[in-house]
Amino acid sequence: MPRSSRTAANQRPPLYRKFADELAASIQAGVLQPGERITSVRIASQQRQLSVTTVVRAYALLESRGIIESHPQSGYFVRQTQSQTIAPSPSVTSLLPRSHPAIQEAHEVDVSRLVLATLKAIQQDGTVPLGSPYPDPTLFPSQRIAQYVSKITRSSHHFSIFNDLPPGDPALLRQIARRYMETGLTVDPQDIIITVGATEAINLCLQAVARPGDTIAVETPTFYAILHAIERMGMRAVEIPTDPLTGIDLDALESVLKTQKIAACMVMPNFQNPLGSMMPDAHKQRLVALAQRHDMPLIEDAVYGELFYGSAHPSSLKSYDRDGLVLHCSSFSKSLSSAYRVGWAIPGRYREQVEKLKFLNTLATPTIPQRAIAEYLTQGGYERHLRRVRRNLLQQRELMRHFVLRFFPSGTRVSEPAGGYVLWLELPAQVEAMELYRRCLALGVTIAPGRIFAVTNRYSHFIRLNYSYPWTSEIEKALKAVAKIVAELS
Amino acid sequence: MPRSSRTAANQRPPLYRKFADELAASIQAGVLQPGERITSVRIASQQRQLSVTTVVRAYALLESRGIIESHPQSGYFVRQTQSQTIAPSPSVTSLLPRSHPAIQEAHEVDVSRLVLATLKAIQQDGTVPLGSPYPDPTLFPSQRIAQYVSKITRSSHHFSIFNDLPPGDPALLRQIARRYMETGLTVDPQDIIITVGATEAINLCLQAVARPGDTIAVETPTFYAILHAIERMGMRAVEIPTDPLTGIDLDALESVLKTQKIAACMVMPNFQNPLGSMMPDAHKQRLVALAQRHDMPLIEDAVYGELFYGSAHPSSLKSYDRDGLVLHCSSFSKSLSSAYRVGWAIPGRYREQVEKLKFLNTLATPTIPQRAIAEYLTQGGYERHLRRVRRNLLQQRELMRHFVLRFFPSGTRVSEPAGGYVLWLELPAQVEAMELYRRCLALGVTIAPGRIFAVTNRYSHFIRLNYSYPWTSEIEKALKAVAKIVAELS
Repeated sequence: MPRSSRTAANQRPPLYRKFADELAASIQAGVLQPGERITSVRIASQQRQLSVTTVVRAYALLESRGIIESHPQSGYFVRQTQSQTIAPSPSVTSLLPRSHPAIQEAHEVDVSRLVLATLKAIQQDGTVPLGSPYPDPTLFPSQRIAQYVSKITRSSHHFSIFNDLPPGDPALLRQIARRYMETGLTVDPQDIIITVGATEAINLCLQAVARPGDTIAVETPTFYAILHAIERMGMRAVEIPTDPLTGIDLDALESVLKTQKIAACMVMPNFQNPLGSMMPDAHKQRLVALAQRHDMPLIEDAVYGELFYGSAHPSSLKSYDRDGLVLHCSSFSKSLSSAYRVGWAIPGRYREQVEKLKFLNTLATPTIPQRAIAEYLTQGGYERHLRRVRRNLLQQRELMRHFVLRFFPSGTRVSEPAGGYVLWLELPAQVEAMELYRRCLALGVTIAPGRIFAVTNRYSHFIRLNYSYPWTSEIEKALKAVAKIVAELS
Repeated sequence: MPRSSRTAANQRPPLYRKFADELAASIQAGVLQPGERITSVRIASQQRQLSVTTVVRAYALLESRGIIESHPQSGYFVRQTQSQTIAPSPSVTSLLPRSHPAIQEAHEVDVSRLVLATLKAIQQDGTVPLGSPYPDPTLFPSQRIAQYVSKITRSSHHFSIFNDLPPGDPALLRQIARRYMETGLTVDPQDIIITVGATEAINLCLQAVARPGDTIAVETPTFYAILHAIERMGMRAVEIPTDPLTGIDLDALESVLKTQKIAACMVMPNFQNPLGSMMPDAHKQRLVALAQRHDMPLIEDAVYGELFYGSAHPSSLKSYDRDGLVLHCSSFSKSLSSAYRVGWAIPGRYREQVEKLKFLNTLATPTIPQRAIAEYLTQGGYERHLRRVRRNLLQQRELMRHFVLRFFPSGTRVSEPAGGYVLWLELPAQVEAMELYRRCLALGVTIAPGRIFAVTNRYSHFIRLNYSYPWTSEIEKALKAVAKIVAELS
């Protein structure tokens, strides 16, 4: 297939990542010791015949992985304590929610009714949206996008539906490919299919690779959109334990693969919802290799990828994909605009099937929002906007964690995500999160109960909190109220 | 279930329809003879204790059904020749495409690749869109809707996705219910689910009532969106012969129901695509009764309902539905705006399942277009717009039929739809429509080959032509070119 070979050729890792990986390997091997100073950017650039930009990006990547750190005025050093994603410090670990042992049976899925009910509760005016899965819409440059929508709507009234047919608006396909290029992944615009949000992308990708009755491996806990896709298709889920720091347990997945036929594996490698975990690059690589060995499609939900707190963009599974087995799904709904529901899939070798399924499912994605977002990306400012959002979210993570640790009873554990905008809380074991959910709702406060993140009720004393909203006394009061009910229930 | 009983109560036929049905029965029974004058509006209103409006609507409805006619200055008379939908005149019948005998085997469905290819061919700049399934977008009041989009976008930047959750924007739900009320159908706004076009509505409704492997009864020929829904779900189709005037053959359907388990029946009762047929009210009533007897859900695709040429709105299957068995699907894409893909379902007793499936499938339909269309409907002018469109389409139907009859070789038969904007042509039996399609495409002219309207290749010498575009010398030339190739192939 010419398409997949082209895809493979394009996905050689960029130079800066190669260089960073080499350095990381040297550090891991002890060639460079903790505390040791690393060659300056200027010198490394000369030595390695690399551009200054490449070296800076490599160092930034290593910094984001917690392998090196910059000291003002003195340059880069190997970190004394390797960051959480590599070897978490004991004090942090003790506070982290615990991951669950594997349950190797496949289960039928039915969580959507509860999810829709929790979302409708948030929809009520005046509730405090701690339970929301969506980012605060005021984070977005909505006014500028609205201007583009107005401009495009005025300048060309008669949109024919032919413009909207899959794969999507050519200008937007090009801009999405450009954005991937900037983050180190080469994608052919023709490999992208525009969808109604990442939700549709995930649905179509799953339908392209699996049949009703098939078993799908998922992380646990996992985002319910993934469970929904499985439920919608009448498939079964097998839950793989997932670590709040390093993501899906690859040994557990491998052992499941030895005993069961798994039609596909669905993962969120970066800032997993609800855990906030980010798989280390080596894990991502190993997962893709595992998929290749078992010829198992990997559906990658990448919607939070742009919301990292480190200094470099996290890598995607897609960047390690040689065989087109990774079906990468994303959208602008978490990073730029949730009002228009513009998402996409990069389905690798399943491109034709996904395009056909898109056509069957909703025929077309409306053109105007596609063009407005393409215009925004063309005009520039996306990176600046994202930097501001990431800064805000990191500050708000700190505030929310601070107050959780202060207000909640001892025995509460809380995640420390390296991106995204949700915290995952393990409450004292006696606390029934569904009861907590109901009592909070009566006070006008929403939380997301653990029940909606798994096919079985294994997270009965877990909740997820959204910290994307600016910190106000109202939110502080709401959080205090939740903590008080937790104390009463425990 | 309180919901379905309310639905049933609300769907009693309106007074004017009851009155019209009584009159029609009297005429059929010979109480009133062809040519006989009917009681004047004023007198009938006094006699029957009905408002003048009710009587006028009843008479208009009978006129649209071709049962009575108005003579200027003298009032209403029973028609001498009953209209085509009741007893077509021999000369018209001889020109109509023939319907096909039933094939009672269920078939797997796989037409979407060919359909997408034909649509992408139309997408090319400069092709003459005789093969298009969509109405000419210049028919629509796009500028006014664009103004509302701009206004709404400017006035409220930060749309939260919570606004978009199913069932949909409350203002739009209300306006859709109001529009149904105006056309004689009482619908509770809460019974409506907004979707991404009628395509999604049909998909969700089918998934709500049937499982993979099930057999679905469809008209033949039928619109490929219906075949797509069946294909997408891995179901099978059994094709029921359908008459170019009166729609689906109810005797054939009934005999299929006696021998096979049919999970659902999907029909377009008004201005069926590609036939243009309109089921007489008595047929609609009988179909709903048949469905009730067999407890078989009826999925009604009503997208062309507003594009009638008669003087009154055709009735829908939904208006005869007492048990909530009719899942009514429609959209604004054929009558008001195709740029925004706003459709809906009124799923009767399957409302909860369809709402849940909508949530699973695409999560939400964007709010801004919903509000813009609601604003348009609130501000008024829809009825005036529709009257203009219907007038245009009727004129263009006349032109297209005139030139087809003039240009095409003898042996060609052509439909005479009472609404919508497509003609169905039966060509001389030797003409291979796929070959015709390819040869036309080489000249920059698209047609819709019969192949895409059935699961088997029974329409190999049929084509569908779109007459929604204003008549130009370019279209005339294109039609002449098609006719010339037909003559060569026959």
